[in-house]
Amino acid sequence: MWLDPRNPQLNKNGELHHLLSLDGLPADVMRQILDAAESFVGVTQRDVKKVPLLRGKSVFNIFFENSTRTRTTFEIAAKRLSADVINLAIAQSSTSKGESVLDTVANLAAMQADMFVVRHAASGAPYLIAKHVGPDIHVINAGDGRHQHPTQGLLDVFTIRHYKKDFTQLRVAIIGDILHSRVARSQIHALTTLGCPEIRVIGPRTLIPSDIKSLGVQVYEDLREGLKDVDVVSTLRLQNERMKGSLLASGQEFYKYYGITDEALAVAKPDAIVLHPGPMNRGVEIDSSVADGTQSVILPQVSFGIAIRMAVMSIVAGNWRG
Amino acid sequence: MWLDPRNPQLNKNGELHHLLSLDGLPADVMRQILDAAESFVGVTQRDVKKVPLLRGKSVFNIFFENSTRTRTTFEIAAKRLSADVINLAIAQSSTSKGESVLDTVANLAAMQADMFVVRHAASGAPYLIAKHVGPDIHVINAGDGRHQHPTQGLLDVFTIRHYKKDFTQLRVAIIGDILHSRVARSQIHALTTLGCPEIRVIGPRTLIPSDIKSLGVQVYEDLREGLKDVDVVSTLRLQNERMKGSLLASGQEFYKYYGITDEALAVAKPDAIVLHPGPMNRGVEIDSSVADGTQSVILPQVSFGIAIRMAVMSIVAGNWRG
Amino acid sequence: MWLDPRNPQLNKNGELHHLLSLDGLPADVMRQILDAAESFVGVTQRDVKKVPLLRGKSVFNIFFENSTRTRTTFEIAAKRLSADVINLAIAQSSTSKGESVLDTVANLAAMQADMFVVRHAASGAPYLIAKHVGPDIHVINAGDGRHQHPTQGLLDVFTIRHYKKDFTQLRVAIIGDILHSRVARSQIHALTTLGCPEIRVIGPRTLIPSDIKSLGVQVYEDLREGLKDVDVVSTLRLQNERMKGSLLASGQEFYKYYGITDEALAVAKPDAIVLHPGPMNRGVEIDSSVADGTQSVILPQVSFGIAIRMAVMSIVAGNWRG
Repeated sequence: MWLDPRNPQLNKNGELHHLLSLDGLPADVMRQILDAAESFVGVTQRDVKKVPLLRGKSVFNIFFENSTRTRTTFEIAAKRLSADVINLAIAQSSTSKGESVLDTVANLAAMQADMFVVRHAASGAPYLIAKHVGPDIHVINAGDGRHQHPTQGLLDVFTIRHYKKDFTQLRVAIIGDILHSRVARSQIHALTTLGCPEIRVIGPRTLIPSDIKSLGVQVYEDLREGLKDVDVVSTLRLQNERMKGSLLASGQEFYKYYGITDEALAVAKPDAIVLHPGPMNRGVEIDSSVADGTQSVILPQVSFGIAIRMAVMSIVAGNWRG
Repeated sequence: MWLDPRNPQLNKNGELHHLLSLDGLPADVMRQILDAAESFVGVTQRDVKKVPLLRGKSVFNIFFENSTRTRTTFEIAAKRLSADVINLAIAQSSTSKGESVLDTVANLAAMQADMFVVRHAASGAPYLIAKHVGPDIHVINAGDGRHQHPTQGLLDVFTIRHYKKDFTQLRVAIIGDILHSRVARSQIHALTTLGCPEIRVIGPRTLIPSDIKSLGVQVYEDLREGLKDVDVVSTLRLQNERMKGSLLASGQEFYKYYGITDEALAVAKPDAIVLHPGPMNRGVEIDSSVADGTQSVILPQVSFGIAIRMAVMSIVAGNWRG
Repeated sequence: MWLDPRNPQLNKNGELHHLLSLDGLPADVMRQILDAAESFVGVTQRDVKKVPLLRGKSVFNIFFENSTRTRTTFEIAAKRLSADVINLAIAQSSTSKGESVLDTVANLAAMQADMFVVRHAASGAPYLIAKHVGPDIHVINAGDGRHQHPTQGLLDVFTIRHYKKDFTQLRVAIIGDILHSRVARSQIHALTTLGCPEIRVIGPRTLIPSDIKSLGVQVYEDLREGLKDVDVVSTLRLQNERMKGSLLASGQEFYKYYGITDEALAVAKPDAIVLHPGPMNRGVEIDSSVADGTQSVILPQVSFGIAIRMAVMSIVAGNWRG
């Protein structure tokens, strides 16, 4: 299987073969995914929420790191495409018998798998796996360390497009732990690719990577300055382990300076929308009145996430005719 | 969605929308479930044990408390209705990330779920969830703390009706740990609703709630007195934790006074049937010769339990035309 | 249900009813399974890898002992036959509530199961279960203690037949921990039944059962002597717990004397094939250059394993017309 060595998720016709990262994903491929997802939003609102696009295909959810929430979204997406789904929590299994990740994966591939949805704590693990599987198997990155979580980034831009239509006039703010967030990284890549002219990152200096400006974003330490006149407020989940570490005094301390409250949101545009990848820490990164308020699109993000995963699976399998 | 505030499992037409409790479930709705289950007994005896009543529907088994046995019955029932089933053991997942139950459930609902089968250690949790989901989602209580386990109660009365036909002439004895048993509570509600004139509870004083007589039942401390001339002997599972506690000396001690042996059963009517919700502690609440004897209907209860769950799911989904 | 008391896996017409052991499985039944599997290899290479042979049937994977790898092969095989599959990890469930294995199984049987795939740490557990289920339920042994792992033995001989065609001219060597290996035992039975004239076992004296010669095999302590001119090199997995025990100095020590390297393999026939049941300990029982080399058929074994399990399930269910 010839894959572009600089971008091993595309085949020689420039079509999506794996989904590993939004970094380097061309705008037309990204738009193809968003357009396909649009049609799947319709399917999930039907009475019979099923299409036969992956009938007779075997999708393996290979989770080296536990994440019930993410696994569930891929499982339901695959089942609505009529695939057979196998869930594998590998931490509890073969690798404990001393087998390497590549042997485990080669073994599963030999079962005539069609698709691997991979989550792993190590950055780059899905790349390594994609490099070693045969041409009939498609790999989807469901989160690798701090690196990427591309379907999350795609559902975020899908949500933004749904409410704001045009990226070329948008001002987007991403708030919180930029340093450890694969969500932030995926969003920045996706928004830039789709032509968003102004992306701001907001957070305490300890949680902003020093080289972030190279991605073309603006850095704000002050929340209200950063939120001024933005169209999109993208909050990030603050990992508990960070709150206990030396990078941050406490969740309450973070909330005081960076929590999205009604009052903070008031400096954004009146029709600004608020995103959060979930699960939320209410009272840490976001106030309940905002999370449950009229500007919140947090639950629509979840719904759109199913459609995005259905779109990605159909496209890599070559079964999408848009 | 308008639901009767006094009985939030019924819609404005008095139809079953959620199944939360047998307490307050009208007799006609209860009979509708039993009649539907009758037809599903036929389906489960066919060669192809599948009907398309829930095709394209997504059923989420949300188990905040582990119970392989109960989860399996709902999973097999949903699959035989052709639903897509997602199993979620939530204790191991998001709530450990500090997310509230309602946020977890709102998130799953946003995945276009059609049905939540909920088990939770806290009484009332399924009510709380039912109150917060949208009108397209149906909640089925699969056991909440000591409170209710309505499908168990329904399969018990289904089994009794199957063997005894008419409730209005029956004498039923429930034996064991009435205090901690949601099974006992569900049975009493169901039997009373269906017109059973005489319900007896039998057990040591420490395991009988002091206010039980308000439910219209008779209390017996002596097993043989209580079993005299009954048509139905409903044994309860004795939780291990009770046996170790101060309420009860030991399993052997319990067996000596309240264990159902052939000799104890001899005082009931000759054609009395014996029920047990499982899993059994042989030699504690029941003797093996009774459990495996001709009067035992313990395994038929399990079979009927699948039919009952298929009936409840079809009815709440609005796909049952009886 | 009449089953041959000397061989309780066959019904009165000599047809496969359960698959419990390769010991005593007649050659014609074994060949029927291999021939059926041949046709399923075709199915698994199709675009839609599904046939409706078990549609509407309920297959329960009852794993009293954890094995993600084996469970996955049965799960994918059953799903490709269109069965409904229920996975049960029983160690974590009812038996911890004090219920016996037979009560657990009777309970599952009452849910109108069609097939039980059973793995248990105790030798003979699948026999015991087969003896107690009704005539409509078929039991497949997925590994019982040190005793048998019949589908593994079948996939091994399927693989050998695939590459070598004729058993009657073959020389096969099995290397490693013969004493604790159910794989070795299953292979010896299958090869003998199919007419293989020369089977050698190779290993340190501490890992060879003293009565092994009664099975008609030859014993070698020296690897190179044993491998001389063989057609098939069947390596066994060395269990970690053995390496730590008194039977074996260490993994490195084992590798020095019994590890299959290119150099050791050179004394076998030039077209000899190398098998391993997985998961491999590279650098203990096998060198990576052999495992990944041109003579290795380790990954084809996995593929054929799915076809074998589809064959066994179809045949015991009575739905195979070969």
